[in-house]
Amino acid sequence: MITSLNNEKVKRYAKLKDKKYQKQEKLFIVEGKHLVNEAIKRNYIKEIFLLKDEENIYGDVTLVTNEVMKKLSSLKNPPKVLAVCHFLKEEKIKGNVVVLSNIKDPGNAGTIIRSGAAFNYDTIIFSSESVSIYNPKVIRATEGMLFNINIITGSVEEIIKKLKKDNYIIYGTDVKDGKEPQATNKKHALVIGSESSGLKENIKKLCDQNLYIKMNPKCESLNAGVSASILMYSLNK
Amino acid sequence: MITSLNNEKVKRYAKLKDKKYQKQEKLFIVEGKHLVNEAIKRNYIKEIFLLKDEENIYGDVTLVTNEVMKKLSSLKNPPKVLAVCHFLKEEKIKGNVVVLSNIKDPGNAGTIIRSGAAFNYDTIIFSSESVSIYNPKVIRATEGMLFNINIITGSVEEIIKKLKKDNYIIYGTDVKDGKEPQATNKKHALVIGSESSGLKENIKKLCDQNLYIKMNPKCESLNAGVSASILMYSLNK
Repeated sequence: MITSLNNEKVKRYAKLKDKKYQKQEKLFIVEGKHLVNEAIKRNYIKEIFLLKDEENIYGDVTLVTNEVMKKLSSLKNPPKVLAVCHFLKEEKIKGNVVVLSNIKDPGNAGTIIRSGAAFNYDTIIFSSESVSIYNPKVIRATEGMLFNINIITGSVEEIIKKLKKDNYIIYGTDVKDGKEPQATNKKHALVIGSESSGLKENIKKLCDQNLYIKMNPKCESLNAGVSASILMYSLNK
Repeated sequence: MITSLNNEKVKRYAKLKDKKYQKQEKLFIVEGKHLVNEAIKRNYIKEIFLLKDEENIYGDVTLVTNEVMKKLSSLKNPPKVLAVCHFLKEEKIKGNVVVLSNIKDPGNAGTIIRSGAAFNYDTIIFSSESVSIYNPKVIRATEGMLFNINIITGSVEEIIKKLKKDNYIIYGTDVKDGKEPQATNKKHALVIGSESSGLKENIKKLCDQNLYIKMNPKCESLNAGVSASILMYSLNK
């Protein structure tokens, strides 16, 4: 059992709240029973930390005190269990794809991963300007689905050009000449633009078809996680 | 211009972060240009506070220093403008209705208000167990749409019974015997259950039809704001 806040492992893993150390160590932390279980299922566990006196339903664990758990956690109310996980494996692009061109809000990014897994997307591309996949709020909002979908970080423009060569249909979103989304069996990529300014011009030009969700004119826009989810649902009904 | 943190008005309005004082004063604060403009349009303004040196596009304002703005704001990065607003007027139930039976997350509640306005719902019912409409995170997530929709707080069970007498169709959500949502012209109420445990048994019994969004079995559920939005969109296409 670890009781000391000065334990070397605790000091090392507590730094994983910081993007820089995550990258350096290729490790990140997931918190709470549900996420830890998803990480176990998919073999991403490096080490599990469990509060002493809690029931161990996880296998190999390191017991810790409340204080140690608090130091490792990025939550105001630390969980009973958390796990240090290895970085996600990036596989080759496969199946239908969602491209996050410039999504800054961690809740939106995590929600899109969760909905993407629900609506049978296999790959999610994060542009380098988007929020980090390993941001604790992204991870929480995915509800563990980050382990169930292939997530790739890269240049959106290059990846879309490659997808076009592979005969993907590229769907953008635009109010101007957008069509209501319809169910399709065709291999496609859905490109989601920035929360505040939509898709950039260079990306818009690469899209084969713009989609638009009809709404009351008193409302200017939907939440980005919501509109991405409605489009994913509608394309894959 | 107000420069002192001990100004009586500043001390009074700074307390409006607290639910208790909001209720007592029947006042709440909205932050940022977009929300302040929506409040102006719908005549909800009591007083606007603008950072000195910022352009006044709002009409009657009280200028304040950075420090005063910081004291009034509930944001880490205080806005350039905020407004103290009167509580929302509760009108009679009209049009299609969304019922939040037990929504605890402020982001979800605000997102449902925003999507409700987009998909032509006229009334939103907040159960007394749900998060407060005046929670600053709810207000931000609505993107100003809280001023464009009739919001009522009350007993979900009583209100649903009343709606049934008025020939509303009551849609619940359930995995078990749920049907895929279809567009409808009929007057209806959509009841959204708790993020963690869905609809309570006594409320389920009152529903005429359960709806279900088909999804990949590896994903247990969608974000509550997303699933409510997909249902609203699908019922009103």
